Amino acid sequence: MKGEKILLSHGSGGRLSYNLIKELILPNFTSPCLQKLDDGAILRMKGFRLAYSTDSYTVDPLFFKGGDIGTLAVCGTVNDLAMCGAKPLYLSCSLIIEEGFPLSCLEEIVLSIKRASLMAGVDIVTGDTKVVNRGAVDRLFINTSGIGLVKEGTNISGGNARVDDVIILNGPIGNHGITVLSAREGLKFETAVQSDVAPLNLLVNDILEVSQDIHVLRDPTRGGLATTLNEIALSSGVEIEINEEDIPVDEEVQAACEILGYDPLYLANEGKLVAFVPPAIAPEILRKMKENKYGSKSKIIGKVVKKSEGLVCLRTRIGGKRIVDMLTGEQLPRIC
Amino acid sequence: MKGEKILLSHGSGGRLSYNLIKELILPNFTSPCLQKLDDGAILRMKGFRLAYSTDSYTVDPLFFKGGDIGTLAVCGTVNDLAMCGAKPLYLSCSLIIEEGFPLSCLEEIVLSIKRASLMAGVDIVTGDTKVVNRGAVDRLFINTSGIGLVKEGTNISGGNARVDDVIILNGPIGNHGITVLSAREGLKFETAVQSDVAPLNLLVNDILEVSQDIHVLRDPTRGGLATTLNEIALSSGVEIEINEEDIPVDEEVQAACEILGYDPLYLANEGKLVAFVPPAIAPEILRKMKENKYGSKSKIIGKVVKKSEGLVCLRTRIGGKRIVDMLTGEQLPRIC
Repeated sequence: MKGEKILLSHGSGGRLSYNLIKELILPNFTSPCLQKLDDGAILRMKGFRLAYSTDSYTVDPLFFKGGDIGTLAVCGTVNDLAMCGAKPLYLSCSLIIEEGFPLSCLEEIVLSIKRASLMAGVDIVTGDTKVVNRGAVDRLFINTSGIGLVKEGTNISGGNARVDDVIILNGPIGNHGITVLSAREGLKFETAVQSDVAPLNLLVNDILEVSQDIHVLRDPTRGGLATTLNEIALSSGVEIEINEEDIPVDEEVQAACEILGYDPLYLANEGKLVAFVPPAIAPEILRKMKENKYGSKSKIIGKVVKKSEGLVCLRTRIGGKRIVDMLTGEQLPRIC
Repeated sequence: MKGEKILLSHGSGGRLSYNLIKELILPNFTSPCLQKLDDGAILRMKGFRLAYSTDSYTVDPLFFKGGDIGTLAVCGTVNDLAMCGAKPLYLSCSLIIEEGFPLSCLEEIVLSIKRASLMAGVDIVTGDTKVVNRGAVDRLFINTSGIGLVKEGTNISGGNARVDDVIILNGPIGNHGITVLSAREGLKFETAVQSDVAPLNLLVNDILEVSQDIHVLRDPTRGGLATTLNEIALSSGVEIEINEEDIPVDEEVQAACEILGYDPLYLANEGKLVAFVPPAIAPEILRKMKENKYGSKSKIIGKVVKKSEGLVCLRTRIGGKRIVDMLTGEQLPRIC
């Protein structure tokens, strides 16, 4: 470790992030909650179960089509709680602001935070504001943490995928990644695509109303769908197979990816989830998801095929099969 | 607000911070917890009371005599929970790291986080790591949030100070401020002074063992003792009187203040608290505090003299009386 330095890819959500956490964080903090590497911790307190999660938001630019850092900071943490099967209730919000930041922009972001909290039905109950000298932070970073309640009977974790589980995705991938990238670079196709940032807790609630027997819920943010599925495959010790032709990608996103050389499987999303569910209840869950505003384009994209050390395979459109790895390196820093 | 910009003093913990929160945050977020402006929120959930708090740490330099940003990030949030009368249980920890940051420094900070959590008896249960491009953050910022449990019968808030309450301080002030300042500027007296950063939850536990009838607990961090007392005076609608000669200040800190032109009343502390308690139980609480490692130099420094719109007065050594205002402007940015 001596002489080594932190690289951007340590924060990509991909391979190097995973290694950093495994080697530096997990050996020092022995809480079983943390060891599970889920989106949040489940704490048993006084006989009930509390979900607890945190995320820092450093997105560049602060404002983009479909949202801004404020929307992201609320939805991101709400979604992390929802992915634990929790009903999100309370958020904390901590701002780190660069000296000289326009008050009018701050106000706009505060209003986005308010709007997103109302949409998600959560309360901001505690906060903090720090101002640092010019150059010590790039404009504004936000941290939110959140707490929620998990019903008895729900047991959702990245480690719970089982052979034969059906994998449902709630809509097209890559929109957030392409939106932020094009806003940052001032690219022309930015007009057509917008971020999918959205609170997914009500969609999760709909899913859990059909059945509590949901094995995994995860939102493919940094590192994209490919990385999320790899994490699940590793945690659960299974092989996952997904079908390229079943994975929805909007036409404009596909076009942008072809021009820029990106693979939508690795692009960040902020309003997407994958659900691993037993085959018997999959059709009913899919039907229910399609009724929700944030699930109208839901599709079954694949299944868990067998036990393994953790592998994700893609059936391509032309009938081939290839291994889909975690994101290696960094595709788009500061995407969320 | 149009055209206005965020100033360093908006983050000082003093007057401008107070105004920013009052004008921009409170009107938009109507949770009664937030409106109280305490160090944390008290949430009633399923019949018991949860304390919840967050803070971001941007201290410069990262390492200083007596601690580092990791120690600070744990103790600061533990103390915010303790000031609500809660027993801190779980922390979240979120790192924002600059590309190129040495892994060995990160390891050292992670070990400090581990050590401080063990001392405070709290578990880090969830976290997040972001890496941003060079120049987007000054080395490393940390956010922690924490949750704890508040016993039935405790009702501690900055708004609960009552006439005749006795004010107890647990030791000398200004050490953290002077330590960070001298480390930053490479001043010579840095050898003698060290930060007081410490977890105060066990001291608070001792206090609450004597009596649950404690009215206010608050740690004078940013903005110092003067600002903290002003916040309490404002929230409670009272006039506070403190005696200059009873306020402990270490000799080296006093000397440094005289050379540099600082007032110890406005310097940040990271291991200090003020307790507002009914006069009848004050002697017993003082005795109990003195038995604790972090309270051995506790002193009664003043009392609440009457109802008012919120005022803090200082009886000077030579018998005069002057008004002590909140910190205006910014004394030492990035002190915590």
